[in-house]
Amino acid sequence: MAENTCRQGQTPCAYTRKIYYYETDNMGIVHHSNYIRLMEEARMDFMGRAGYEYRGMEELGIIMPVTYVKAKYIKPLHFDDVVHVKTRLIFFNGIRAFFDYQIFREGDDTPSAEGESGHCFLDTATRVPVNIKKRCPQFYARAMEIQEKDK
Amino acid sequence: MAENTCRQGQTPCAYTRKIYYYETDNMGIVHHSNYIRLMEEARMDFMGRAGYEYRGMEELGIIMPVTYVKAKYIKPLHFDDVVHVKTRLIFFNGIRAFFDYQIFREGDDTPSAEGESGHCFLDTATRVPVNIKKRCPQFYARAMEIQEKDK
Amino acid sequence: MAENTCRQGQTPCAYTRKIYYYETDNMGIVHHSNYIRLMEEARMDFMGRAGYEYRGMEELGIIMPVTYVKAKYIKPLHFDDVVHVKTRLIFFNGIRAFFDYQIFREGDDTPSAEGESGHCFLDTATRVPVNIKKRCPQFYARAMEIQEKDK
Amino acid sequence: MAENTCRQGQTPCAYTRKIYYYETDNMGIVHHSNYIRLMEEARMDFMGRAGYEYRGMEELGIIMPVTYVKAKYIKPLHFDDVVHVKTRLIFFNGIRAFFDYQIFREGDDTPSAEGESGHCFLDTATRVPVNIKKRCPQFYARAMEIQEKDK
Repeated sequence: MAENTCRQGQTPCAYTRKIYYYETDNMGIVHHSNYIRLMEEARMDFMGRAGYEYRGMEELGIIMPVTYVKAKYIKPLHFDDVVHVKTRLIFFNGIRAFFDYQIFREGDDTPSAEGESGHCFLDTATRVPVNIKKRCPQFYARAMEIQEKDK
Repeated sequence: MAENTCRQGQTPCAYTRKIYYYETDNMGIVHHSNYIRLMEEARMDFMGRAGYEYRGMEELGIIMPVTYVKAKYIKPLHFDDVVHVKTRLIFFNGIRAFFDYQIFREGDDTPSAEGESGHCFLDTATRVPVNIKKRCPQFYARAMEIQEKDK
Repeated sequence: MAENTCRQGQTPCAYTRKIYYYETDNMGIVHHSNYIRLMEEARMDFMGRAGYEYRGMEELGIIMPVTYVKAKYIKPLHFDDVVHVKTRLIFFNGIRAFFDYQIFREGDDTPSAEGESGHCFLDTATRVPVNIKKRCPQFYARAMEIQEKDK
Repeated sequence: MAENTCRQGQTPCAYTRKIYYYETDNMGIVHHSNYIRLMEEARMDFMGRAGYEYRGMEELGIIMPVTYVKAKYIKPLHFDDVVHVKTRLIFFNGIRAFFDYQIFREGDDTPSAEGESGHCFLDTATRVPVNIKKRCPQFYARAMEIQEKDK
């Protein structure tokens, strides 16, 4: 399960939880929309582990809405499965951020799903784009550092 | 289907839509949490038909959070079923409001589910309770009128 | 609003509904995962209008799981907005199907969001891929016809 | 925080997780329907800790649908709050089961919400009620034992 272990020098890697019953659908598998939610959970967790909680960003008056999302469903997930989500920051320039995700069912070497998300940064009050480099230099520095490691 | 028809003098009665695929679960039926959401849709629709849109209330700086909710599940609902939700305002005094709901599958004389919800009114900014009689006298008058009809 | 009207000779075009309160999030806008659900609603509606209900396909022992999904979020949507979803079948060969979607807020000429979804066809019991051309020739013929029109 | 600690001799008590962003709504608080889902997560967790996983019950061909649900919302919950859910089996006779729930925000002595759920047991294939005493005597014995402790 080498794929599913942390790479050296990275932020601690996986977000783990069980699949909930309400995430399943009539096909007896996890509904595809719920992977998008799971990716959000993993992204928030990743940001917290990286030293910048999303909650803190909102407290500074900045929101990070999703501008783009993609998911590829490879193998179905079922109720009570334990899943590990590996998140990476693949692009960040202070104005836009892109993450990618691999979702593994516990015990599997290959991912059950893969995804990506794109984000911008807006002022909560005005909804105008902000540059994180100016507005939150500490966050900017930390995100640049993570991005380097994730390469 | 007398039960499912409008009573004379009432606000137009039922909110109707199909069941979505993503509302079903591993049992092949609508997940119980989604009835609570359907009740919200029906309540919002009821308020709009009654002449006071919930959106308008929020624009006046008032929110109407849920303080209580109850549902009784009688017969399961499935994907693509057409459902009719009958909503009534059963109590309103300007400070608290209670609604009840009957959810019918199209063609059925007896409800598939029944529910209730309780609400208070808060100032959006301060989250302090407000009295609708003082804050929105027109809404108060309209709600009192509906409540009378619903008895 | 030429963009938002039906093209001649097509299946009737848009799926319309209001945004529900429970679809909004802390940013005061529709949560991005809910667009994926809205796309599913529109796809099911499109299939029904095209003469082949998804429910009917499941009754024949075939499921059409999502293998891929993509969404681009252009302008935010809010509670109570009326949205029109235009769906097209952009590829179908009996083994795979791809749809695309444009989500318009009522009154807007340009989409608030765009999306795509990919699907395969599986036998419900065995979860083995099936060829719709052999298994449901009528559905195959109808889908090929729609695909042509959508070009 | 005596209220929030385990009582002696009970099954390990609380189910804990953070609030997800997608659980919030336009009011900036957790949408009321999501408490019903959180109660389900806690119930499944409780059953697992009690020695009878719900998944195992479904593998025996039995489902445990919800026949009744109730929630009282006392204090709002927000994104990233850590919540502890205390679950108890308050009634069980092999045919029906009732659970109650207290949801605490970490650090609070008093609950943010309280709830109840009622359940029956059905054969998955026939959807006919089953008596757990006959069908799963081990589960019955274990549930009776838990119920005694919870009194």
